[in-house]
Amino acid sequence: MKSTLPNEALRTVGEALQGSLVDLIDLSLVAKQIHWNVVGPRFRSIHLQLDEVVDTARSYTDTVAERASALGIPPDGRSATVFQGSAVSPVPEGWLPDSDAVRTMVAALASVIAKARERMAAVGPVDPVTEDIFIQLTGELEKAHWMFQAENG
Amino acid sequence: MKSTLPNEALRTVGEALQGSLVDLIDLSLVAKQIHWNVVGPRFRSIHLQLDEVVDTARSYTDTVAERASALGIPPDGRSATVFQGSAVSPVPEGWLPDSDAVRTMVAALASVIAKARERMAAVGPVDPVTEDIFIQLTGELEKAHWMFQAENG
Amino acid sequence: MKSTLPNEALRTVGEALQGSLVDLIDLSLVAKQIHWNVVGPRFRSIHLQLDEVVDTARSYTDTVAERASALGIPPDGRSATVFQGSAVSPVPEGWLPDSDAVRTMVAALASVIAKARERMAAVGPVDPVTEDIFIQLTGELEKAHWMFQAENG
Amino acid sequence: MKSTLPNEALRTVGEALQGSLVDLIDLSLVAKQIHWNVVGPRFRSIHLQLDEVVDTARSYTDTVAERASALGIPPDGRSATVFQGSAVSPVPEGWLPDSDAVRTMVAALASVIAKARERMAAVGPVDPVTEDIFIQLTGELEKAHWMFQAENG
Amino acid sequence: MKSTLPNEALRTVGEALQGSLVDLIDLSLVAKQIHWNVVGPRFRSIHLQLDEVVDTARSYTDTVAERASALGIPPDGRSATVFQGSAVSPVPEGWLPDSDAVRTMVAALASVIAKARERMAAVGPVDPVTEDIFIQLTGELEKAHWMFQAENG
Amino acid sequence: MKSTLPNEALRTVGEALQGSLVDLIDLSLVAKQIHWNVVGPRFRSIHLQLDEVVDTARSYTDTVAERASALGIPPDGRSATVFQGSAVSPVPEGWLPDSDAVRTMVAALASVIAKARERMAAVGPVDPVTEDIFIQLTGELEKAHWMFQAENG
Amino acid sequence: MKSTLPNEALRTVGEALQGSLVDLIDLSLVAKQIHWNVVGPRFRSIHLQLDEVVDTARSYTDTVAERASALGIPPDGRSATVFQGSAVSPVPEGWLPDSDAVRTMVAALASVIAKARERMAAVGPVDPVTEDIFIQLTGELEKAHWMFQAENG
Amino acid sequence: MKSTLPNEALRTVGEALQGSLVDLIDLSLVAKQIHWNVVGPRFRSIHLQLDEVVDTARSYTDTVAERASALGIPPDGRSATVFQGSAVSPVPEGWLPDSDAVRTMVAALASVIAKARERMAAVGPVDPVTEDIFIQLTGELEKAHWMFQAENG
Amino acid sequence: MKSTLPNEALRTVGEALQGSLVDLIDLSLVAKQIHWNVVGPRFRSIHLQLDEVVDTARSYTDTVAERASALGIPPDGRSATVFQGSAVSPVPEGWLPDSDAVRTMVAALASVIAKARERMAAVGPVDPVTEDIFIQLTGELEKAHWMFQAENG
Amino acid sequence: MKSTLPNEALRTVGEALQGSLVDLIDLSLVAKQIHWNVVGPRFRSIHLQLDEVVDTARSYTDTVAERASALGIPPDGRSATVFQGSAVSPVPEGWLPDSDAVRTMVAALASVIAKARERMAAVGPVDPVTEDIFIQLTGELEKAHWMFQAENG
Amino acid sequence: MKSTLPNEALRTVGEALQGSLVDLIDLSLVAKQIHWNVVGPRFRSIHLQLDEVVDTARSYTDTVAERASALGIPPDGRSATVFQGSAVSPVPEGWLPDSDAVRTMVAALASVIAKARERMAAVGPVDPVTEDIFIQLTGELEKAHWMFQAENG
Amino acid sequence: MKSTLPNEALRTVGEALQGSLVDLIDLSLVAKQIHWNVVGPRFRSIHLQLDEVVDTARSYTDTVAERASALGIPPDGRSATVFQGSAVSPVPEGWLPDSDAVRTMVAALASVIAKARERMAAVGPVDPVTEDIFIQLTGELEKAHWMFQAENG
Repeated sequence: MKSTLPNEALRTVGEALQGSLVDLIDLSLVAKQIHWNVVGPRFRSIHLQLDEVVDTARSYTDTVAERASALGIPPDGRSATVFQGSAVSPVPEGWLPDSDAVRTMVAALASVIAKARERMAAVGPVDPVTEDIFIQLTGELEKAHWMFQAENG
Repeated sequence: MKSTLPNEALRTVGEALQGSLVDLIDLSLVAKQIHWNVVGPRFRSIHLQLDEVVDTARSYTDTVAERASALGIPPDGRSATVFQGSAVSPVPEGWLPDSDAVRTMVAALASVIAKARERMAAVGPVDPVTEDIFIQLTGELEKAHWMFQAENG
Repeated sequence: MKSTLPNEALRTVGEALQGSLVDLIDLSLVAKQIHWNVVGPRFRSIHLQLDEVVDTARSYTDTVAERASALGIPPDGRSATVFQGSAVSPVPEGWLPDSDAVRTMVAALASVIAKARERMAAVGPVDPVTEDIFIQLTGELEKAHWMFQAENG
Repeated sequence: MKSTLPNEALRTVGEALQGSLVDLIDLSLVAKQIHWNVVGPRFRSIHLQLDEVVDTARSYTDTVAERASALGIPPDGRSATVFQGSAVSPVPEGWLPDSDAVRTMVAALASVIAKARERMAAVGPVDPVTEDIFIQLTGELEKAHWMFQAENG
Repeated sequence: MKSTLPNEALRTVGEALQGSLVDLIDLSLVAKQIHWNVVGPRFRSIHLQLDEVVDTARSYTDTVAERASALGIPPDGRSATVFQGSAVSPVPEGWLPDSDAVRTMVAALASVIAKARERMAAVGPVDPVTEDIFIQLTGELEKAHWMFQAENG
Repeated sequence: MKSTLPNEALRTVGEALQGSLVDLIDLSLVAKQIHWNVVGPRFRSIHLQLDEVVDTARSYTDTVAERASALGIPPDGRSATVFQGSAVSPVPEGWLPDSDAVRTMVAALASVIAKARERMAAVGPVDPVTEDIFIQLTGELEKAHWMFQAENG
Repeated sequence: MKSTLPNEALRTVGEALQGSLVDLIDLSLVAKQIHWNVVGPRFRSIHLQLDEVVDTARSYTDTVAERASALGIPPDGRSATVFQGSAVSPVPEGWLPDSDAVRTMVAALASVIAKARERMAAVGPVDPVTEDIFIQLTGELEKAHWMFQAENG
Repeated sequence: MKSTLPNEALRTVGEALQGSLVDLIDLSLVAKQIHWNVVGPRFRSIHLQLDEVVDTARSYTDTVAERASALGIPPDGRSATVFQGSAVSPVPEGWLPDSDAVRTMVAALASVIAKARERMAAVGPVDPVTEDIFIQLTGELEKAHWMFQAENG
Repeated sequence: MKSTLPNEALRTVGEALQGSLVDLIDLSLVAKQIHWNVVGPRFRSIHLQLDEVVDTARSYTDTVAERASALGIPPDGRSATVFQGSAVSPVPEGWLPDSDAVRTMVAALASVIAKARERMAAVGPVDPVTEDIFIQLTGELEKAHWMFQAENG
Repeated sequence: MKSTLPNEALRTVGEALQGSLVDLIDLSLVAKQIHWNVVGPRFRSIHLQLDEVVDTARSYTDTVAERASALGIPPDGRSATVFQGSAVSPVPEGWLPDSDAVRTMVAALASVIAKARERMAAVGPVDPVTEDIFIQLTGELEKAHWMFQAENG
Repeated sequence: MKSTLPNEALRTVGEALQGSLVDLIDLSLVAKQIHWNVVGPRFRSIHLQLDEVVDTARSYTDTVAERASALGIPPDGRSATVFQGSAVSPVPEGWLPDSDAVRTMVAALASVIAKARERMAAVGPVDPVTEDIFIQLTGELEKAHWMFQAENG
Repeated sequence: MKSTLPNEALRTVGEALQGSLVDLIDLSLVAKQIHWNVVGPRFRSIHLQLDEVVDTARSYTDTVAERASALGIPPDGRSATVFQGSAVSPVPEGWLPDSDAVRTMVAALASVIAKARERMAAVGPVDPVTEDIFIQLTGELEKAHWMFQAENG
């Protein structure tokens, strides 16, 4: 597939998109995992809030992967790749008290945001179109990050 | 959490739901992977058809996991669990010609259906409510299976 | 096309689905026929009620035929097949007074329900997925049957 | 029922509407039959395109039959009448390769269009309201005819 | 205002549109009057059916009047003009038994249809665009006429 | 029909509702008349604004007439009654410059409002339910009155 | 909970709201009971009309109960309270011919309206906000009352 | 009314449906009662969650009662019957702290689920259509049961 | 602009509307301020509940201001006027714990309700249309007041 | 591609459709050009009115081109063809005062209408289906023509 | 609250967001003020156009404030802060002729745009996510600015 | 019209926007041309895919032209300008086999993307708001480019 970007730019952009794809898939799995396992007086509130993170993560997963395809880079979102490459720390098995759930999500979002900000900086000079995706994504993740922080505020 | 099912029933039902949860998450990842990587004269058609499988898989993922929770069994849908336990064979990396894409999906669906039929039979005698979920799920998967078979018919 | 059911089960399920497909197509034609030809003080009420039967019949026609396809059995819904195989008795030509319309529909629905209950029983032991379709269908038809009976109650 | 048309006009218009009613019901049955039985690399594309023909045929079936009723002519859309009077040639039983499906639909549409153009000419001098229905119907059928021709273009 | 039609055509078209405007406004007032005053076992059915006539009448009132304006003929839909020029016979004051309501509507629709068919014939040779409006309108009125006739059928 | 109001109250309420019904039907006819005949640089703006008055008038016509029926008073909205009893002054025939259109609407609304305020005062002591309809109606009419006044402000 | 009304007003308003809450819950149960048990040539028409009463009753049940809460009065809508305090006469068990169904609803609505008018009068001098709820409610109930009366008109 | 089930089956199915109808009506009343009376830091969350139970209960009330009617058994959902026959324990009067609200709902749901499971088992051998309604209903109730348990988890 | 109210009435009504306009704008600013600054375990719940207050306040701001305009009184909703004339006490700067947020809203709503009840009483004798706006507004504010009180109940 | 029309009819119909396609594309470009460049006190009104013309022109562009395809005539809507063959006079570059905008649109619409009426007459005797498209199109254009004329009336 | 930005960046971004929050709240108040007070032949047009500015301003108010919160900076949108810090010049009290309204809005938008461009430049080097919000906001405001300029063009 | 940009910036931005406007209009015409003329086994798939390009091109045409207007630069989208200035190569007349259609679109999109990337680079330093439009546009075009490339992959 012929790319509209020169080769050296492609490598930078490709690594950023692939890395982010893996993080976002894992973030959606983690958020669903807690959505099903959270317990405590804030159950309903956190349960619903987590599905908003899932929606954001799934929507950007598609945006990021299709951006890679659009540039001629085949994206890799298979479970083995996700399991081995995600920036999100593993979450515990079983029922999760609501304050632990909030803490876990604050940490998971912080990891993904840190990586996204690095990638935003890396792709900026070579492809403003991809950079713009990271800008939008970072804004959404930082909003979600605030909302979980505020729960424990 | 107090279950509305007796203990021996719970083990059977729990294994069936947990096994299916893992299969369905992996099916959604595989379908998305091909959605992004398929090439060839049927690109658009297969690309769209795959997103219907993703929708089905994601929707039943939630149904299956929340059925486990409703019975007092904490579901496990983390990436490590998915990677290690899925019934779906690994798919190749990179661009995928459309007829390979169709063949891969026929095989993936066949594996998940075979497991779902076993679990449907296992849970039937102990919990008709869970059985009903497997009945609905199997019907949907068999419809998708036909549609990919018909593509190569 | 490769089926997910073993061969002996296929024959039972295939006969049940094909028989029901023919009944449902004819039921939709009969209900439309009366929808256009009913007259009398209950015209508007019966005219509208019949379109609900048409919607139900058309929707299950598709469900039943696609279930056959999903199992690898090619469905046959051609006019010759419908004309020769339907369980619904022929309806008279021309304008139809509203109480005759109601009586005709009660009888037509009763015939289709009787066959559907037989098929539900036949497929139950070999394919719970197809059985479930007959269960849903029978429930809908019995509700329509009550509503026409109640009109003459 | 008192008609707003004089008697001699009624006979012409009645024959045209009754003939078209039968063709359109059979066209909807044929299109559904192929919708369920088509196979080949264009399966999904043709499967969806056929449901658009079904929608058109069903919608005009109602328009044509209710126009007959509005003029005081009881329409006849029973399966026996359809089977015996349709302009559409019988279609083969069983799975149908996609290029055969396209060819069959081009031929079926061509037959129904030829009859519709004759009826449009016949009713024009005696009832412009019915003529207008045939004009709209012919336009829709010719559009569908082009789209199936283009598939084999 | 400059018309896109020649002067002699304008007079014919103008008379047809103005006459029809008055009939349709009165038809909408009559249908609403009965909508509020009907009583008897078919109250609800007739009450609802009448509002469909009101919708049709109001919608074509606008179509007809704006067609006149589009041709440079100022339409006149004032109450005095309606009262003095309508083709619809006056309806009685006060509560109206449902069979009288049906009979009154059959008669009112028959009058408006007769005039519409005359006007359709008159404008045909000079303006096919206006003729088309009368064709559509007549079709809608004849459908409503059938439905009230069928109530007493 | 048995009323939920005592007889003396009924006469007062009946006169108020009947009077308002006539005013509102005529207001809707006048607003439509100007909607079709207005010309000038504000054509589009006034044309659209008038349809909002038509919507308000038609909606309250129904409310007022059905309130009469609900109290056992048969409402009279026939064209003869409207022509003879409306509080709205006749409007001129033919094209109407936009500032005349605005002036005419300000005057028409002022007449209907004045009557509505009298009726609101009359019915208040005998039926708060009917009074509430006049309160809502007056509020809507006064809002429309301001908006046409502001046009000439 | 601190009320925005003085204490003596609270008692009057509280009694009115609590009484009405009980009537409305019972009205919704009675209308559903007949919705399921009505038979006869008007079955469909009455069946649908009753669900509109159910919607009205349920919607005002919420309005009335939340108004009590808003004023600091805990509402009581438990089945024992409803059974013991309702103004609606008991309805017979089993299938109900359509004219009996209409008569029963006319009587039930008349009882609830009579009580609502008393409560509207009682609360008017002490809380116009609560009075307004009774005004709206009475208007809706009187409209439903007319529609069932008209059925037997 | 003629049933599509034999007599002995009817008695079993009739008792199950009638018993469940009563439970579900009472569950909807209890959930509304707490919806209006709950107080505490989880007020808004519980208040909203309860309306979802109300929606489920009301929707299955209709399904269950209309299933009875469809089989020729007149359902009984009158307040006296509900008060005397419900499986739900009485709830206290007045404001209810949120953790009591949660505990009350867990208990109420557990009672209704236990009965529904018994009825599901009883009707299974005689009517799979009714059994399927109990399967769906039990699944919904067990999901709600989990969600209230998780609140206190 | 010519008013439909006499002069002395205008002054009373004008003061009430202007005062309420200022209170409602400030209420919307205060609710948004807390919407952004609330922290604590009820963050999400309170954050969402506050936006409902913002919607109510903004919607009545428009109703109240346009009522003034409709009566010929120019409304004043500029920031200086709001800052100087609001009945709502200033709220603290910065992050706000959730229980303080609830307390602040209870107090703010109580102030605005007290003023609204005074104005409702003042305008009642001179303009029932404006009074009705205050009745509706007070009902809405008292409902919001209860919901924040119940949070701390 | 095989046409459903005879050859001599095809030439007439083909010329009419191709000519109209070019006019309509250019009309949509001209209307957009003025939509962006109009200035003056009627800016907003004309800006919005022009987008309605764009919608009409684009929608009929598709109808006309697909009618050509449906008859086996390949339509030509390329920019060179449009530039060389349009019936619309060139419009000036740059900002356009609103009264010039209105005058320009009246003239552009008049040109396109005159051609459409010629084509409607030409195709009438050979293809009523295509004639009907020109009838609908002419009606829409004449309505737009009136609305711009009325602006300067 | 822990920020994802370093401290020095936070100060710059915080000042930009806080300044813009104040401007946008005031812009929404000013636009509403003129929405209610504008008079003249363009009343309706300007009245509607202003509500689009209100929607834009309110929507970005939320975006800007929640961006501050997301970065750990508590936003301040209280009326005192708005009154004292807004970039928008005060608008006159009372009815406002439409050309003054347009001029006032052109000036108000120009002030807010100038500030937004300064802030866009300031935050660009330290936070591309916040910069992107200013880019979107400036684009929207410049579009509104053009539309008001064009009104006077 | 007064611009919010300094003069030297305006020239750069103006040339970029005007150039892009012409490319996008021509792209929409080319995509529609092929939409109507494509033939072959992928007809339906390509036909639908092309309308998505038309939607994208039309939507950005408006965005780009209104951005020019917003900056005080009158946009030029007349057919002569498009014909003479487009970056898209002319497409052949008549029916177009589907693989030629795909190749033509890949080439057309590549040309427009190349120009858009140059303009994005040119405007970046002088107006980030316009740059952002080019970034979004380029992203959309590159996605479409991938999808047509994948068809031939």
